[in-house]
Amino acid sequence: MRVGTLAIIGVGLIGGSFAQALKRQEMVDRVIGVGRSEANMRRALELGVIDSAEQSVTRAAEMADVILLAVPVMQVATVLSDVARGDHENLLITDAGSTKQDFLASARRWLPAKALLRTIPGHPIAGAELTGVDAASEKLFQGRNVVLTPMVENDPAAVTRVEKLWTACGARVSRMTAERHDEIFAAVSHLPHVLAFALVNAMAQREDAADTFGFAGAGFRDFTRIAGSSPEMWRDICMANRDNLVTQIDAFAHELWRLREGVRLGNAALVEEAFSKAREARQSLLPPRRDEGGR
Amino acid sequence: MRVGTLAIIGVGLIGGSFAQALKRQEMVDRVIGVGRSEANMRRALELGVIDSAEQSVTRAAEMADVILLAVPVMQVATVLSDVARGDHENLLITDAGSTKQDFLASARRWLPAKALLRTIPGHPIAGAELTGVDAASEKLFQGRNVVLTPMVENDPAAVTRVEKLWTACGARVSRMTAERHDEIFAAVSHLPHVLAFALVNAMAQREDAADTFGFAGAGFRDFTRIAGSSPEMWRDICMANRDNLVTQIDAFAHELWRLREGVRLGNAALVEEAFSKAREARQSLLPPRRDEGGR
Repeated sequence: MRVGTLAIIGVGLIGGSFAQALKRQEMVDRVIGVGRSEANMRRALELGVIDSAEQSVTRAAEMADVILLAVPVMQVATVLSDVARGDHENLLITDAGSTKQDFLASARRWLPAKALLRTIPGHPIAGAELTGVDAASEKLFQGRNVVLTPMVENDPAAVTRVEKLWTACGARVSRMTAERHDEIFAAVSHLPHVLAFALVNAMAQREDAADTFGFAGAGFRDFTRIAGSSPEMWRDICMANRDNLVTQIDAFAHELWRLREGVRLGNAALVEEAFSKAREARQSLLPPRRDEGGR
Repeated sequence: MRVGTLAIIGVGLIGGSFAQALKRQEMVDRVIGVGRSEANMRRALELGVIDSAEQSVTRAAEMADVILLAVPVMQVATVLSDVARGDHENLLITDAGSTKQDFLASARRWLPAKALLRTIPGHPIAGAELTGVDAASEKLFQGRNVVLTPMVENDPAAVTRVEKLWTACGARVSRMTAERHDEIFAAVSHLPHVLAFALVNAMAQREDAADTFGFAGAGFRDFTRIAGSSPEMWRDICMANRDNLVTQIDAFAHELWRLREGVRLGNAALVEEAFSKAREARQSLLPPRRDEGGR
């Protein structure tokens, strides 16, 4: 499979890595990049991540065979409405957003019915706190999970084509509904980010915050690494996945309260049992480590 | 300074690393180890971490010039009462426990007044999830923080001697009261452990736990790494530092609730501001990374 021209909207870590991997695999002939920062676009050209820079999403979509939206999730609606304004017959549309129900809703709102045949929502689980095209790598997705959440409107052949693109990047592709995706990632990704941000904030409010942080060990550093993530990106994710996130926060808060009461009442058995179960669950359920990344 | 014979009670990562570093610096002539596992003691002898193994804490204390307690904090009382049964004049007593007010209370309860002159509570901030003498290293404490929490009963010269031992291990030593220590470490260490255990437990209770963990990225892995820590050790720490820990859990829960309400009500500005503050605080207040470790 060869796709001709790829347009990436948002030339950062994810978009750039997707372009590089597909170039490397000779899956694409040409990459058009659309981005807001001129400096970043120049850099992407210099690095050979993109072959040309374009300011208009509409025009890039008209020139492309495949378009990847790799923008903060709150910008998806604007980008899709720009895509919809263009004139194209067989454009394959996909995205890399961390939430999926909102993408489906935007696609249904902004795209004509025939475009929905070839609009395949996706979410690569890679990225971490690095951002920008300089961090892009053709290896970013190797061994990583990519979740596609096909729409009922999709042409199955189009889903398979997007799947092949990600497979060519070295990713392991799975499929689930957008509802299930958003529920799972609220638990495994969005909640931990909120907890890390909340912990750092609670500590920063201490009068002796500088002293306190000064005694942080590697455990604290690891635990709060995700609090170094982009506030804008995570604000958007939290807003887009509100209901699931609140449900997950409440489930967590319930368990935290149980532990708090165990500690307060000196119930050593309860506390040890909870800690033991957690350690066992982590050891038995968390898949073996691969090299890096993860959002 | 040269101390003659060092006794380490608990021949694991911390006790073993302390012995190795002091041997390397030629600060000690001989190391006696006391531990419950015969296999571990044999291993410590093989590795040369200790020169002889002893079953009785009392006897080891009688032969030693310096004794380091590197046992779970709930065992401190038993070990100190064993030490107190022995016959010694100038024994320097110190420990490596993660909580300090309980150590002071045990020392005052079990040791005679003259022994308190030379009983210096300490806490090396190193360790992470590795355990056992095989993980011990003469380099473990290099560049690490060690906090001493001297008692009013202490002979200042004895405090200085313990400080010199840790400095010889490459550590940076600071002093504070036991009260302040326990308050700071409730925030920076004990709370994050409870949160990590609680998060993994909340997730493990899901019907689709295996699937959910399967989609965890590196962020989740980092965030929950400390949930792989010893349940027994952390149960003891939580019990020993109950009041401070409950206070910190409540401060965290308050901030979490604020974020939860921001998310639920779609208050994007509140959420973004909180995330931005957290990122800034972490960047500006967390000291630059050193290699590894941390409890």
